[in-house]
This record gives sequence, C-alpha cells and structure tokens, in this order.
Amino acid sequence: MASARAAPAFCRGTHTMEVPMELFKQNRERLCERLRKNSKVPKGAIVLLQGGEAETRYCSDNEPLFRQESYFHWTFGVEEPDFYGAIEVDSGKTILFPPKLPDSYAVWMGRLLTAEDFRVRYGVDEVCFSNEILSVLKSKKPSSLLTLYGLNSDSDKYSRPAAFDGISYFTVNKELLHPEISECIQSDLELQVLRYVNKISSEAHKVVSMILFYFIFFSLFGHYCYSNGGSRKMSYTCICGSGDNGSVLHYGHAGAPNAKQIQDGDMCLFDMGGEYYCYTSDITCSFPANGKFTQKQKGIYEAVLKASQAVINAAKPGVSWVDMHKLAERSELEALKEIGIVNGDIEEMMAVRLGAVFMPHGLGHFMGVDTHDVGGYPEGVQRPEGAGLRSLRTARTLEKRMVITVEPGCYFIDVLIDQALNNPEQARFINRDLINQYRGFGGVRIEDDIAITADGMEMLTCVPRTVEEIEAAMTEGRGNQQPLPQEVKQ
Amino acid sequence: MASARAAPAFCRGTHTMEVPMELFKQNRERLCERLRKNSKVPKGAIVLLQGGEAETRYCSDNEPLFRQESYFHWTFGVEEPDFYGAIEVDSGKTILFPPKLPDSYAVWMGRLLTAEDFRVRYGVDEVCFSNEILSVLKSKKPSSLLTLYGLNSDSDKYSRPAAFDGISYFTVNKELLHPEISECIQSDLELQVLRYVNKISSEAHKVVSMILFYFIFFSLFGHYCYSNGGSRKMSYTCICGSGDNGSVLHYGHAGAPNAKQIQDGDMCLFDMGGEYYCYTSDITCSFPANGKFTQKQKGIYEAVLKASQAVINAAKPGVSWVDMHKLAERSELEALKEIGIVNGDIEEMMAVRLGAVFMPHGLGHFMGVDTHDVGGYPEGVQRPEGAGLRSLRTARTLEKRMVITVEPGCYFIDVLIDQALNNPEQARFINRDLINQYRGFGGVRIEDDIAITADGMEMLTCVPRTVEEIEAAMTEGRGNQQPLPQEVKQ
Repeated sequence: MASARAAPAFCRGTHTMEVPMELFKQNRERLCERLRKNSKVPKGAIVLLQGGEAETRYCSDNEPLFRQESYFHWTFGVEEPDFYGAIEVDSGKTILFPPKLPDSYAVWMGRLLTAEDFRVRYGVDEVCFSNEILSVLKSKKPSSLLTLYGLNSDSDKYSRPAAFDGISYFTVNKELLHPEISECIQSDLELQVLRYVNKISSEAHKVVSMILFYFIFFSLFGHYCYSNGGSRKMSYTCICGSGDNGSVLHYGHAGAPNAKQIQDGDMCLFDMGGEYYCYTSDITCSFPANGKFTQKQKGIYEAVLKASQAVINAAKPGVSWVDMHKLAERSELEALKEIGIVNGDIEEMMAVRLGAVFMPHGLGHFMGVDTHDVGGYPEGVQRPEGAGLRSLRTARTLEKRMVITVEPGCYFIDVLIDQALNNPEQARFINRDLINQYRGFGGVRIEDDIAITADGMEMLTCVPRTVEEIEAAMTEGRGNQQPLPQEVKQ
Repeated sequence: MASARAAPAFCRGTHTMEVPMELFKQNRERLCERLRKNSKVPKGAIVLLQGGEAETRYCSDNEPLFRQESYFHWTFGVEEPDFYGAIEVDSGKTILFPPKLPDSYAVWMGRLLTAEDFRVRYGVDEVCFSNEILSVLKSKKPSSLLTLYGLNSDSDKYSRPAAFDGISYFTVNKELLHPEISECIQSDLELQVLRYVNKISSEAHKVVSMILFYFIFFSLFGHYCYSNGGSRKMSYTCICGSGDNGSVLHYGHAGAPNAKQIQDGDMCLFDMGGEYYCYTSDITCSFPANGKFTQKQKGIYEAVLKASQAVINAAKPGVSWVDMHKLAERSELEALKEIGIVNGDIEEMMAVRLGAVFMPHGLGHFMGVDTHDVGGYPEGVQRPEGAGLRSLRTARTLEKRMVITVEPGCYFIDVLIDQALNNPEQARFINRDLINQYRGFGGVRIEDDIAITADGMEMLTCVPRTVEEIEAAMTEGRGNQQPLPQEVKQ
C-alpha cells in the first residue's frame, strides 16, 4: 500500500517488503558525515555518481533486464538506467539527474515520469534531467566534484568514475570517495532488507530443494522467490551440483550448466539466493538426493557443520576473520581425523595448509548490495598468504552490523587430492586408501548469512541444518514413499 | 543420451531436444558456399569470428550467466565464452580456439576440457587454444581474414569484428562477411529447433497464463520452459501487462517491472518466449484476467484476430512484408469501423496512416538466433516511410524458410489518441466519444511465429486463439468456480 502512505517506498505487492527511501537518505547522510570528517575533503564539495547504463547484448537490440550499479543503488535506490546523482557534502542536499527521454518513448515505455514524479518517488531534494547536468552543477559552484574510482578486491576491476560532457570545467577528485563509501557498514534499515531477502531465500531453499523434491529444478527457486517475495533477480547464477559436481565450486557456469542428472545416492549442493531491491542473499544447502544420509555422507556433512557452528559461536565484534577461517579449518580437520581421512597433529596440518585441500576457498565474504560486497581490503588490510587463506575475500576484524557469509565446505577435488598426495609435507597426514574412496563423493558446503551484533551475531538464514532436521524435512516433504524419479534434473 | 551416440549433439536431458552439431556444420557449409560464389572473396580466405566474452557486472565480480553472441552461436554452436572460430572458405575446414585457462581453474570450473574434448564436443576439424591463434593462422597462410562488421538494423549498432594481438600481420577484410552471413535463411535443422522452442513456449503460455491462473507470475513461465523444455534463458524480458499497461509496448522494463496488480475485468497481454540453445521464440497471448471476455474486449480482440488471420492466410513466398503490414491495418480498421470507433473510407484512412494510431509498431520481425533476427534490411532494401511502416523491422519479400512473427495489435495509448484527435486529417475518421470510452482499456496483441513454406506458411505457435478457445481453456483450467484472488500479480 505504498501509494497510500506519505513516505516514498519500494514495494513489489502487499505480500512483499516495503523499503522506505529513508534507507538511502540515511546512507547519504552517513556518507556525508564520513566525508565531512575527512580533512582532505574541501568545504563545498559535491559527490557525483553515475548510475548503470542500459545495454544491449552485443550488436543486437536484446536488452537484458537492467540491474543498477551497486554503489549507485546504495546511494539513491534508483531502479532505472542512465541516471546521475549528486550530493552536496556540506548539507546532504541531493539532486537526481534522470535521462531526458524523447516524448515518443511513451508509446514503448508508458507515461514518462516528470522531474517532480522522480523527486517524490525517490524522496530527494531536486530532480533535473541529465541534459542539464552541466548548468545545474555549475550553478552550485562546487569546490570539487568527488567521483568514484577504486579497486574491487574481488574482481580486481576498478569502478568507473562519473563523466559527462563538460566535466573538465570542474575540479574533480576521484580518489577520496571510494574508500569512504566502501566503509559504510549496514544500517538498521539495510539489515531489515537483508533479513527479508534471506527469509524468502531460506523458505525457497526449504520448499524447492528439500521438500518438493519432484520440482527441484533451480528455476523453481527463482519462481518461488519472485512469487512469494518479489525477488525478480537472483543474487548470482545458481550453483546446483550433485554427486561429483558438488566439488565444482562454480558449477552452473555456461560450460557446466547445472545439467547433470541427479542419481539416487548423490549428495546435492545447492547454492542459491534471491535479491530484493538489489539487496542480496547467499545460501547453500547440502543434502542427500534420496533424503537419507549414508554414514559416509553423514560424516562429511557433520564435519562441515561442526566448522560452521564453531564459527557462528565465536563470531562477534573484535574477532579476526582470518582466525575464523582457521577455526573452521581446525574443526573440520579434527572431524576428518575422527573419520580417519587424516591422521596426526592438527597444528602441524595447519602449518602445511592441509585444510585448503578440503576447503580451497575462503570461509565467507561480506554481503550487501553485492553478493560479494565491498570493503574487504581497505587500505592497511593485507591479503593473507597461504592456500585457502589467500582466497579470503576479507581479512578484517569483525565489527557490529557487518553482514558476512559463513560457508565452510569440504570437497573431494581430484586435482587437489593428487597435488596433496604428491606433496610429502601434506601426504604424510593423509590416509591414501581412505581418501581415494571419497573420490567422486562431491562436496558439502553449509552457507549461512549472519549480521554481527554488539556481542555476537544474528542468524539471517533459516533452513534445516542438522542431519536429523534435513532428513525429517525431506521425509515429510516426500511423504516417505516415492522413489527417485528418473527424469529429475537440477 | 547424447553421450551414447557417435554424433555430437546438445541436449538438456532425455525429455529435451537433441540438437546435432551437424546443424552448425551445415550453417558453415552454406556460408562458405555463398562466399565462394562471391567474386570479391579471394581464394584462400579464412572466416574469423570472435565469440562473446565473459563479463562482470560493473566493477563487481558478479558474472551474469553467459549468452553466446548470436553470429558465433549460429556458426559454431559453442556454449562457452572467450572463443575464436575460423573456417577455411575453400574447404570448409573449421578450427575452434577456446581460451587457455590456468590449471587452477579446475577447482572452480570442474575438469578443464582438452583440445580433443572440444573437437569432439563441437564436431569441428581442429582445436587449438587461443594463445596459439597467431601461429596457427599464420601456418594456414590465408589470402585474407574475413571478419564480421556490419549494421544491425534493429539496434543501429555495429557488430565488433574479431581482433587479436598480431592480426595486423594479415590482410583483413571486414566488409564481405556480414552481408553474406546475414542472408543465410533457416535450414531444416534450424527449423526443427525453432519448432521445439515454440512448442515449449506455447505450452508454457497455455499452462501459466490461461490455465493455472493462481500462478500466473511470469517467473513460472521461465520455470515451466526450463523444467519441461530445458530452456535456461528467456528470449527477452517478459512483457506482462494488464489493464492500461497492456498498451505499454515494452512494459516490463526496469522502470515498469511487471508489478501492477491484476484487477478483475482487466485484459492481460503476456508476451513471453523461451530460448533453447540460443534459438528463440516470441509469443503473445491476450486474454481477460477473469476468464470471460466482455463485449468490448471481444470486439477489440476479434479485430486483432481478424488481422492476424488475414496475414497468416496470405503469407507465402513472393509476398511483400510491407503489404502484409498494410493488410493487417486494413483488416483491423474494418473491424474498428464495425464497432464504430472509426468511420469513413478505409483507403483514405490508410493514406493518413490511421492504422498506426492503433498499431504503432511493425507487423512482425525475423526470428532465429536473435528474437529480432538479422537480415531485415540488406543492401537495396529501403525502410518504408510513414507511421507504423517505418517501424517495420524488415521490408523484404518473403522467401521459403524465413521465420517471422505475425503480431498485429490494437492499443489505446493516450498520447497517440490525443495526437490523432488533434490532427484534423486523422480526427475526421474517429468517433471521439466512443474512442474516449476505450482509454484505459490497454491493448491486445496476438503474436504467432511462422515459417514460410513453398506455398504458404507453417504455424510454429500453438495456443488457444479464438475467443471461444480461450474462454474454454480458462474455464477448464480454473474449475469455473474460483473468484479472482486479491494478491495475484503479473
């Protein structure tokens, strides 16, 4: 009922969450506050961001559904392409610059919104069309324009600073903004959206993966998230591996399109998350295809669960994420030692990075408007060395309101097993006969999203996690009677 | 069962279609045959295409699911990004150049395919990794490399010719290839794939839009196409308008995200199509939300149906598509005259382009590996003038095997009605009082995909089309008893 309220908000129907534009106003205020405290930022500066642009696929006129650039979304909450946005740092006054579309576009796009429509919709102070950007910004006489240029430590790509015809008229600083905006940790309002999208995605995991087994196609996950939660987009390409593919960390890419047929006896590893108004979720469930863990599956699953629980119990402000990664490794190695796959002293195993043979990726990553959210390596935070550790997407100390995934995993990846067995430093801990029996097992990953609180963490994800919970959910969902269908695919 | 057969093929499970790599071999042969007949193409030339590249969203590491560039797909059927492909024109001998990935990628992507794996998978003569492209092509001593550069008449964008370090070593011609490759009309094997994806999409329209009314969310369309037909991608962003939004021709874009709540009494206009192995479909169904046409809705619907049927009955080789557009306009204007919305002489209405007030878009477009397929305006074919006509995506004479959409529509678009009423040349034909009663009606579009045959056309689409068929399907599907749910969204 957004339209009946005074405050502007985003909403996808009465059954979905209403996100107030106040969220973005607060984000801008928090950003300006940081900038005002930064002595390098002169009085009279204006932040200038350029939003994502409408694109077509190659030279065709096929337009993939637009998704806003994440910094721009975080700052303005604008859904459409080709905008600019400016904020006067001293006052926080905000101006949006939508593109000026030809009147004839109304036939294709519907009634074209006026400047006032946009002003009300996004709750900003002023709206001028982008063909006026030069004159409007000139009239503000900014001491400098702060544009966004900085490295994304996950992609190793740089953000593209705003540009427009005539920008050379201004003093432009593109270095000051990026470190400040990347340091704005989640607000209460942002946490609410992240809770919501996690709840929807958790429900979808439960329904799609574990209960409605006859319809486990991952496209149903997207349909569930959209129809029940208004999530039009997924946070990332779903990873739905079964059997050996569970050990392909990015299974689901174009060359491995989630197309293997699930076999009775397979472990499944489903990594899927919905996105709502660009806020993301990232959840992995691992479970036996036929609803019942074998002893072998149970052993590996519980090794990972133990690692997950250890981290979740320890996570709180002041804790080093690198230490959390090591904690997960230790827990997992201890469990693998109980199974007999590894033998010897855990600390010695840690010293030769044995944990990374089984978990070659980092323990988790920040999550927000991007699934792999920014801020992992600000100036002064060094990427750690060593297998597994160097894959961490952040090496920071946890702070209140940080949202981060906890996603330990244990995989049996031939190439890594071979390397370890050929490396005397690692091989001496490994039971060669036993580990060979796990080739083809695939993998287990348990991934939850948590928000750091004053004295611990808030769990955002809610899916069956223990062996007993999963088996009960699957038994209930399947009526405990049907055989595995032949034609089911992921 | 692709793996059990000798011939390489694409398949998404035993319930989906098997597409033989022979399809692409034939495409290459057809292309080479055209090139050999072209006196400007020297002996010893090699066609060189560059496939689509893996991309990330802005500066983040979010990788949207890759979709192959259409010309490259048509020529090689390669699913993965970052390939090159070459064809010796004289012999048809084909070489693929996959990217050389670091061994460490196996952990993330699964076992890396060898050159021999790719050779077998895609049924080509030779595979070398792309880091060897310069030396391999040098060894072939081509008289020239034919790369792809030409205008897409729908997007007004140019294709990007292949490039690699060292290409300046060769004589490169980028003009000869584009007009020839764009002229290759659908083969029998291609028609089979188009029939398949049309069948799946037709079924999905029937189930999702008309029968399972409680689940009409368009995300279910995607789920249906994927789970029943292996269509992982949609051909385009679904357009799901209801009520007045039915008149927004590109409803569904980021600023109008299919988010209006459907009301009892609304007409719905659902334009959705699945894609299979990059072959597209494009189908629109229009129907009353509550399952029963009002007299007013029936009148407009049947006006459009009449236009559709007139075109379908007339379509055959030798017929001008511009004439087909005019035929649709005439049929529609006659029907609107019967209703009383327009009055006067039809040919006089045609002269002032009155039909474009109600149908501002073109009658249809070629369809193949792109939804708006290439070849609409080769050299010598002029874009016609006049409202509606100038929007035609082709002005060609139909030929056997051309696949084209037939999609007449009738919309009540305020801005166009206002323009017409203010234009004395058009206003004199319009019943002002009556047309004003249709404001807010939305629109009707009936879109089928056809293939031109030797003496007519083959209908690829199969959904309920007459008023009686639609009402029967909806009555049956809904059990004839349930009220319109309050919370249903498009």
